Amino acid sequence: MKTKKSGRQTVCLMEPPSIIGSAAAVGKKEGQGPLGSSFDHICEDSYFGEKSWEKAESAMQRLAFFKALDKAKIAPSQLDYLFAGDLLNQCTASTFAMRDSAVPYLGLFGACSTMAEGLGLAAMMIDGGYADYTCAVTSSHYCSAERQFRAPLEYGSQRSPTAQWTATAAGAVILAAQGGGPYVTAVTTGCIRDAGIADISNMGAAMAQAAYDTINRHFEDLRLTPGDYDLIVTGDLGRVGRGIVLDLFRRDGVDMAPVYDDCGVLLYDQKKQDVHAGGSGCGCSAAVLCSLLLNGMRAGRWKKLLFCGTGALMSPTSSGQGESIPGICHAVAISSTR
Amino acid sequence: MKTKKSGRQTVCLMEPPSIIGSAAAVGKKEGQGPLGSSFDHICEDSYFGEKSWEKAESAMQRLAFFKALDKAKIAPSQLDYLFAGDLLNQCTASTFAMRDSAVPYLGLFGACSTMAEGLGLAAMMIDGGYADYTCAVTSSHYCSAERQFRAPLEYGSQRSPTAQWTATAAGAVILAAQGGGPYVTAVTTGCIRDAGIADISNMGAAMAQAAYDTINRHFEDLRLTPGDYDLIVTGDLGRVGRGIVLDLFRRDGVDMAPVYDDCGVLLYDQKKQDVHAGGSGCGCSAAVLCSLLLNGMRAGRWKKLLFCGTGALMSPTSSGQGESIPGICHAVAISSTR
Repeated sequence: MKTKKSGRQTVCLMEPPSIIGSAAAVGKKEGQGPLGSSFDHICEDSYFGEKSWEKAESAMQRLAFFKALDKAKIAPSQLDYLFAGDLLNQCTASTFAMRDSAVPYLGLFGACSTMAEGLGLAAMMIDGGYADYTCAVTSSHYCSAERQFRAPLEYGSQRSPTAQWTATAAGAVILAAQGGGPYVTAVTTGCIRDAGIADISNMGAAMAQAAYDTINRHFEDLRLTPGDYDLIVTGDLGRVGRGIVLDLFRRDGVDMAPVYDDCGVLLYDQKKQDVHAGGSGCGCSAAVLCSLLLNGMRAGRWKKLLFCGTGALMSPTSSGQGESIPGICHAVAISSTR
Repeated sequence: MKTKKSGRQTVCLMEPPSIIGSAAAVGKKEGQGPLGSSFDHICEDSYFGEKSWEKAESAMQRLAFFKALDKAKIAPSQLDYLFAGDLLNQCTASTFAMRDSAVPYLGLFGACSTMAEGLGLAAMMIDGGYADYTCAVTSSHYCSAERQFRAPLEYGSQRSPTAQWTATAAGAVILAAQGGGPYVTAVTTGCIRDAGIADISNMGAAMAQAAYDTINRHFEDLRLTPGDYDLIVTGDLGRVGRGIVLDLFRRDGVDMAPVYDDCGVLLYDQKKQDVHAGGSGCGCSAAVLCSLLLNGMRAGRWKKLLFCGTGALMSPTSSGQGESIPGICHAVAISSTR
């Protein structure tokens, strides 16, 4: 049984699972951005009613999870597998969010690529015959990330123009063997790619090469071109990384501009919101997928989407020890028809 | 296609993948323990020739990975997927170990359950028709873990009698669609279970309930009893957690003692090596699996093994905020025949 593999890194799902529910919960700043009206839950309180920002992130992830279940009209006990992960040390935002869910739990670490990684695995678990219902969920929180990765917020540190803003956002997707779509049709799993960038204020540049590699590989494996998609979206390269991806393709004589965008660019208003190069964090691409993108597919705005989650696989310790930033990108093809 | 699911949490693999290569690389202390002669690589230098313990952990993980490929007689480029994870913040031991591997990479976070989580997923990817060859790899290092989770080694902190010793160890398993075994025949994915234990010096107690739940679920889902296995091994509950698991089963009138052991107990010599309640860390169960257990299966010592990886899904931050320790356990059934 080797029929599902197409080329080196891509699998085509024989019975594409349907996305039967998705939801996004975000913070106040994200709610004030251009996608504000499409989120399921916007919390004015950065603590989400909890006593710490870490607990707030878990609470926000739960909001997205339960709302997605509501929209899918299934109970947690119907889920066969839950794929979850986040940026906090030891991925505790997800662990504590899902502690009481009683769903078989598979923890992931893919940094900001987590939603794409989880979505791909969640789809393969159904198509492979291991599950009827699966969920992929992830989150990030500006305040919990900032004090873990950079400096306490109270320091009021200056930010570099290439720096991205960690989104306070969570997204959850429920997949099922049966349903009216959109459908996950193919998954291209990325290899780690280190472009040698060591500037932790320029993650977009560090991840752009990985995004280029995976998107290119997806095209090669399936013999497709950018024009085969209505929208190709990376998440989250921001403005700097997005520009690099466009440049890299341009060198090959490929113009991605008509169909390409980035979740980190889409989430905030560049002019009115002080986010420098754009959004980032596991929750950024997850929340954009679970609002603008999937809603747009359901409304017929796009029929074929390539969702390319990108992650920077570093830690403050690895950067402190002089290491460059390894990047990764996983691409998931989503189609409104099977 | 729902035939693979058996009960709530277990899947039976229709075409059980074969373990065609496995290897363990460990530190000096682990090499001096009772399993010393069965490891593939023992490094006298805790730095493994690197400049930091974090880089040492990556180097050790690479040693296990390449040795497992050697034993399987396949090239990295033949691997379709690599599942990897570890305990370091943002799982950087694995990221940097596998940075140059050019294998599609799926990052996991399962704490000390990582090998079981990765092995289960790696097996399902083959059985599901997505891959011909997959790898699960993980590691832990006493020195990188100690300074991240507890205190700088230079403090010479006292250890509680219930505390476990993070193993300096790595294990890698290569799976293939074809091969002479041992075979992965079933996978029971665990739910998070929080027993309310908040003592970070007693991880065994925190994880024991999760182990009991998953093993019980495995028996129920497949209608098996402990006697159906030659060996049921948890990793890594240590002496305290192992005792609790035995007690929990005893309450149900089930005597697990004849077939049950724990990787954290097996790795070190309780009398001669100062490890208190036993070993822990992602590398502990991984290295015991890739030495004693799989070698023993190949030699005919055991025919049916239930490998139950256990993980404590906390962080210093969550514990510092007063949270208890959520545990998880994934069980993978390995058989010498299909």
